[in-house]
Amino acid sequence: MHDAVEVILAKRDGGELSDSQIDWVIDAYTRGDVADEQMSALAMAILLNGMGRREIARWTAAMIASGERMDFSTLSRPTADKHSTGGVGDKITLPLAPLVAACGVAVPQLSGRGLGHTGGTLDKLEAIPGWRASLSNEEMFDQLEAVGAVICAAGDGLAPADKKLYALRDVTGTVEAIPLIASSIMSKKIAEGTGSLVLDVKVGTGAFMKDLEKARELARTMVGLGTDAGVHTVALLTDMSTPLGRTAGNAIEVAESVEVLAGGGPADVVELTLALAREMLAGAGRSDVDPAEKLADGSAMDVWRTMIRAQGGDPDAAMKQARESHVVSAPSTGVLTRLDAMAVGMAAWRLGAGRAKQGAAVQDGAGVLWHARPGDEVTEGEPLFTLLTDEPERFERALASLDGGFDIAAPGTTYQATPLVLDRIG
Amino acid sequence: MHDAVEVILAKRDGGELSDSQIDWVIDAYTRGDVADEQMSALAMAILLNGMGRREIARWTAAMIASGERMDFSTLSRPTADKHSTGGVGDKITLPLAPLVAACGVAVPQLSGRGLGHTGGTLDKLEAIPGWRASLSNEEMFDQLEAVGAVICAAGDGLAPADKKLYALRDVTGTVEAIPLIASSIMSKKIAEGTGSLVLDVKVGTGAFMKDLEKARELARTMVGLGTDAGVHTVALLTDMSTPLGRTAGNAIEVAESVEVLAGGGPADVVELTLALAREMLAGAGRSDVDPAEKLADGSAMDVWRTMIRAQGGDPDAAMKQARESHVVSAPSTGVLTRLDAMAVGMAAWRLGAGRAKQGAAVQDGAGVLWHARPGDEVTEGEPLFTLLTDEPERFERALASLDGGFDIAAPGTTYQATPLVLDRIG
Repeated sequence: MHDAVEVILAKRDGGELSDSQIDWVIDAYTRGDVADEQMSALAMAILLNGMGRREIARWTAAMIASGERMDFSTLSRPTADKHSTGGVGDKITLPLAPLVAACGVAVPQLSGRGLGHTGGTLDKLEAIPGWRASLSNEEMFDQLEAVGAVICAAGDGLAPADKKLYALRDVTGTVEAIPLIASSIMSKKIAEGTGSLVLDVKVGTGAFMKDLEKARELARTMVGLGTDAGVHTVALLTDMSTPLGRTAGNAIEVAESVEVLAGGGPADVVELTLALAREMLAGAGRSDVDPAEKLADGSAMDVWRTMIRAQGGDPDAAMKQARESHVVSAPSTGVLTRLDAMAVGMAAWRLGAGRAKQGAAVQDGAGVLWHARPGDEVTEGEPLFTLLTDEPERFERALASLDGGFDIAAPGTTYQATPLVLDRIG
Repeated sequence: MHDAVEVILAKRDGGELSDSQIDWVIDAYTRGDVADEQMSALAMAILLNGMGRREIARWTAAMIASGERMDFSTLSRPTADKHSTGGVGDKITLPLAPLVAACGVAVPQLSGRGLGHTGGTLDKLEAIPGWRASLSNEEMFDQLEAVGAVICAAGDGLAPADKKLYALRDVTGTVEAIPLIASSIMSKKIAEGTGSLVLDVKVGTGAFMKDLEKARELARTMVGLGTDAGVHTVALLTDMSTPLGRTAGNAIEVAESVEVLAGGGPADVVELTLALAREMLAGAGRSDVDPAEKLADGSAMDVWRTMIRAQGGDPDAAMKQARESHVVSAPSTGVLTRLDAMAVGMAAWRLGAGRAKQGAAVQDGAGVLWHARPGDEVTEGEPLFTLLTDEPERFERALASLDGGFDIAAPGTTYQATPLVLDRIG
């Protein structure tokens, strides 16, 4: 009916792919009838020549159709999920899922592991002794009904075409194509069966998207895809030029999340958690509930503990600590005016919190703590960063990452804070 | 030093590849360290974003460096070679190589097999009983010294990077990139060690390049590459909207070539053979010799017979004839004003003269004879085409190819012939 070269030529020459070409190529690629070298040429042509809204929607639908589709419509509560495009210190899922569940909306959160300078939600949770990321579909459904929140690994049955294409794009320089990014994210989220979805699209040095306009385009594309597929979808564009909170790592981000659930924690983490929770509740028709109350009254913490226990974890157990630490002192006295998310993310990654290769292990205890945030006063010789790792030979390269990653201005300098939530699309 | 994704991103984002990136990627691809799916993404990025003259020259040099380089400088005569970008009925190499040799210039012609609607020189010569295409480098050198002309298959040692890349481009929609076409052709021709080279760049419906401007760009690129590499290089742009001569196939094209060598044959085949011979002689510093005389006096025929015998062939043996034939009569009386090269080429291919898949066999006897050329008068009911094949079930699809492939105008219509040689670049 179709062949790979015909489909490649159509896109290469600036044409639109027909529905039947898209259905065919995704199915044939999943089955192995379209070879990796053909799909990578097509991906490059898509990256350079783009795809229209109809094409992206069909491409997404074809990826969903390559696997199973979950259905939570028989749950006793509405469902809402969140997806972040990835940031440094982005532990928001950890307090957010139990918080939204505490507000009466079920959260079926399928998460991933980290690759590169941004951490992975599953890597963080795996720092909790006993906690396991793999659940069967039935376990997931039962936990959603009983606890209201689940954070687990996506099964192999969900959008297998995306899984294959994602790995291919990673090695062929075809990651940064908005149609391919949007369809990859949305195919998994739509197949996952959530009723509503909030996208946290990160913008800034530590984000995949450095540029606000590009991020807006990605957000609009994803909101369009979700809406067309019947999922109530909203996107927040949020700043990722500064890392979130005060920690980047695995165990240390869990600890920070627990602080937030206990009613404390860094102001920006609390702010973003609440902003996303409000959007999720609104999408699920529960705007009447105030998530701030559920943080304050301890009910979000209760769901967290139940959720961790339901997946074999012990919320009270001590997590592994890094064997070695190294303190970086402030080189001068003044006002911290810049803390670069990419610099901090790279440092945490180099300390062992992230992995360089898919499948590699991460260190639970590794990471970076920063003792000041932009706008804070710092004093020469006082600790600015604490670096944590099990392998002290990692300090040198981590320190190199931090070099040039922050600015300290003269004492008394006025710091103009940028808003955390930059825009909303929905 | 480099990695594949870095090189892909540089070209994807519209940058120029450095010499060291090009050297690395070609070498790593040849060794298998750059995967097919990475090279195809790079090829698509090159196709869509182009390469500058320096990049193309370096790419070509890197492909040459991937294998051995032949050296004919110790031969007692100068060398000249010809390359055609491929056309329908393009048997020119067959009379040309012995003709130029008869003029005192050695012709080391490495040829290919056909794929698709244009025939392959080796397929044609293999219709001669006993003739073999494979020669060792020593056999090739000895035959060049003794006979003056050799037409044989390129050995595996010559530009192996090109061999691998060519096969990849074929299945990934990345054939039509001028930098890749030019470097593919020129890497083989430069590695082959010829002192001078004439390029026959075909333009028209039956050619790879349909458009004169594109063909000029390809010709200029190739002439630049040859010149930069120290090979005296000239290109003729020649018409391929009408097929050459009166036959397209294997044995029937050999027979037509022998007619030309005997001093007869179709005027256009003679004209192009002489035009290319004069360029080759000029490039080799032998403009003093008139090739028309060597056709007329039989000395080109003598070299042909010696050349065929030197490779095991019997120039006097009967070639295989097709078992079945089918005549197409002129549907009206008048002047043939158009005979479409692509239509004829597709018909010959569908009759079995060409192959659909690399490595498949071709029929020696299959092909198309046309009994009129544009400008000729035709009479209703008289034969216009003869179709030849061993498998009569092939006639139907071959006839479909010819449908709409020619025009007959009212008797007396003046036919405005287009020149065969459209331009010269060098």
